[in-house]
Amino acid sequence: MINKLIEKIRKTNAPIVVGLDPMLNYIPRHIQEKAFQEYGETLEGAAEAIWQYNKGIVDAVYDLIPAVKPQIAMYEQFGIPGLQAYKKTIDYCKEKDLVVIGDIKRGDIGSTSAAYAAGHLGRVQVGSKTWAGFDEDFATVNPYLGSDGVKPFIEVCKEENKGLFILVKTSNPSSGEFQDRVIEGRPLYEWVGEKVAQWGEEHMGSGYSYIGAVVGATYPEMGKTLRKIMPKTFILVPGYGAQGGKGADLVHFFNEDGLGAIVNSSRGIIAAYKQEAYAAFGELNYADASRKAVEDMIEDISGALNGRK
Amino acid sequence: MINKLIEKIRKTNAPIVVGLDPMLNYIPRHIQEKAFQEYGETLEGAAEAIWQYNKGIVDAVYDLIPAVKPQIAMYEQFGIPGLQAYKKTIDYCKEKDLVVIGDIKRGDIGSTSAAYAAGHLGRVQVGSKTWAGFDEDFATVNPYLGSDGVKPFIEVCKEENKGLFILVKTSNPSSGEFQDRVIEGRPLYEWVGEKVAQWGEEHMGSGYSYIGAVVGATYPEMGKTLRKIMPKTFILVPGYGAQGGKGADLVHFFNEDGLGAIVNSSRGIIAAYKQEAYAAFGELNYADASRKAVEDMIEDISGALNGRK
Repeated sequence: MINKLIEKIRKTNAPIVVGLDPMLNYIPRHIQEKAFQEYGETLEGAAEAIWQYNKGIVDAVYDLIPAVKPQIAMYEQFGIPGLQAYKKTIDYCKEKDLVVIGDIKRGDIGSTSAAYAAGHLGRVQVGSKTWAGFDEDFATVNPYLGSDGVKPFIEVCKEENKGLFILVKTSNPSSGEFQDRVIEGRPLYEWVGEKVAQWGEEHMGSGYSYIGAVVGATYPEMGKTLRKIMPKTFILVPGYGAQGGKGADLVHFFNEDGLGAIVNSSRGIIAAYKQEAYAAFGELNYADASRKAVEDMIEDISGALNGRK
Repeated sequence: MINKLIEKIRKTNAPIVVGLDPMLNYIPRHIQEKAFQEYGETLEGAAEAIWQYNKGIVDAVYDLIPAVKPQIAMYEQFGIPGLQAYKKTIDYCKEKDLVVIGDIKRGDIGSTSAAYAAGHLGRVQVGSKTWAGFDEDFATVNPYLGSDGVKPFIEVCKEENKGLFILVKTSNPSSGEFQDRVIEGRPLYEWVGEKVAQWGEEHMGSGYSYIGAVVGATYPEMGKTLRKIMPKTFILVPGYGAQGGKGADLVHFFNEDGLGAIVNSSRGIIAAYKQEAYAAFGELNYADASRKAVEDMIEDISGALNGRK
């Protein structure tokens, strides 16, 4: 799956991923009203609004991008109906041949991690049959529990030709509280990064490993160091745009081959119509605003990468 | 909710929680067969088997215990139908007046943690109405992302009278890989424990905080230290029984008042009928075997606590 991701990045010339993290207040009124008319102001109504909103965005941008990253929390907050919208979104994006990165940040001990891995990336056995629960292509994983929490995910990736992005340095302001603490002269995130590089070396696609890392755009200097510690690791970079990251800050997350990183933007793309720069599109044309925001993001990042050469 | 948990522990004289972590291979054949007859060998069939199995156990043990801890991964692996069984289990346990600890180990940055918190412990706004998605009483949380990942959960607990158990030292063999790394002379788990104690002090029930911690039974010495670092923190202790922890190892997780900890057993209770000690009950009477295993666990832990005095 890492090979497919790289192939699609090359083809679209866009090392970016659109974060499908819908909040109800991003969703244009006409979509909300229609959904509420049909299902009421219920969890089902919210889920329908989210799904229609996502579909509009995906239809408008799928040819420009290699991948999407739905954030499961934004669906899970609406309970079972929300998770049904999550699953529908995954299936639809896969129909559109997009690589789907499930931003689930799961992580637990042995058999429990194995259950998460089976449910999101693999299959479960029911009697004589096997079924896939959510079936994302990649998933994000939290490493706090150590190797035996991560390995069950790796095993499933190996069997199913899927991949991971493991949290190394997250984009939020207080990520340093534990991740930056110094152990034998080096911050914890470097130790985690080293471990990710090790896991990755044993699980290679062509050129890059299918065991990737998450490093926030908001910490470009750390990104530069981690790029060197994890040379064959694909880095998923959240925090671009709304969280403050810019294309020029991000060049060091990439290798000389122009690959090795994929930059996520969520709010900046899916709620573009709410920004001054795209307000002219209007609420009804929110998806066109998202398309323009994707084009601008590609230009920003490609420009920065070309400028480096 | 921490007050209710403590009141129920006092009433049952049982500082224990039953982990409802069903695996299909734990579930007696007669339950699986019935479920598959009705729904086929499908995700729906698996979910129905899980639900019937859980219901049998809950009916057999609810009067003996204060709380249950369903592990969401074991349901999530069966996709949407699995999560429907999770929700049904929560609702049923609450009907039986059990405190429900959702073992979800979520954790993300700001608005995303807020979404998880709303979905599991709080409510979401849909138009003019509010709805609860999963509505557990407590949830487990992963602290790797730092304060701004944890605080949205705390805020919801405050509003909704709910509680948390934050991972400090997990019970698995490789938990030490990152959690035990030494920072300024002390292991990371102590720093996390100190932070949990701080968060907790600002969010007190009567005597104990509703911001609790997870510390594995498999590390009794560390439990002793953490007990001192977090005197007003309720500790959820996984790893008893099947993972190797024994009652005598656990006394130091408790304060002198005999409170301050709640010990979880999952497989040891719910699949008791598979152990030699309870094999005489037979597969058909699996729930009676679970009841006997609960009684034995209470005796083991109470005995150890009384022995300390």
